[in-house]
Amino acid sequence: MPRPARHVFVCTQQRPPGHPRGSCAAQGSTAVLQAFWGELQKRQAYEAVAITYSGCLGPCDGGPNVVVYPEGTLYQRVTPADVNEIFDTHLIGGQEVERLKASGATW
Amino acid sequence: MPRPARHVFVCTQQRPPGHPRGSCAAQGSTAVLQAFWGELQKRQAYEAVAITYSGCLGPCDGGPNVVVYPEGTLYQRVTPADVNEIFDTHLIGGQEVERLKASGATW
Repeated sequence: MPRPARHVFVCTQQRPPGHPRGSCAAQGSTAVLQAFWGELQKRQAYEAVAITYSGCLGPCDGGPNVVVYPEGTLYQRVTPADVNEIFDTHLIGGQEVERLKASGATW
Repeated sequence: MPRPARHVFVCTQQRPPGHPRGSCAAQGSTAVLQAFWGELQKRQAYEAVAITYSGCLGPCDGGPNVVVYPEGTLYQRVTPADVNEIFDTHLIGGQEVERLKASGATW
């Protein structure tokens, strides 16, 4: 793929049921990843945006976690319903989605 | 983890033996990831650097692929022997390792 203007990493870490840290997968991150890929395809934004799944980003209890570079914005508790707004506002528009940003204490 | 000054994503994508695209895992990326994690621990650089594994970054035939943000530098054909230099020069020093950078046609 070409070097993207913005690169989204969606944590899809899994852990066994009952694990004390939980996981983004257990909190629905696979559906979030699929929503990002679907939106990417719908918009044919392959030249501008890359979507990649990743391992653990750290603050598991606030997942699903999504980090966007080059800004290094961590979004938490992301749902498929948030993905369109993240595309419009941040990935294309260049402004962070304030309501989804991790707190300064977390990231 | 705290927001890192630099965030390294190591592709650990696997594909079945004989798959036409190959994979970074088949080209040794797991050892590269372990080398990054080992170096992170040795340097106790957890406040400044994050190391995360990821899915496919695109140009599989040049793997193992490693991308470093916020610069968005793609390194290719990375081996465990390269990791110390990437730490010193880029992750701590802030200068890209020119000899490992993907070509402009790739990224």
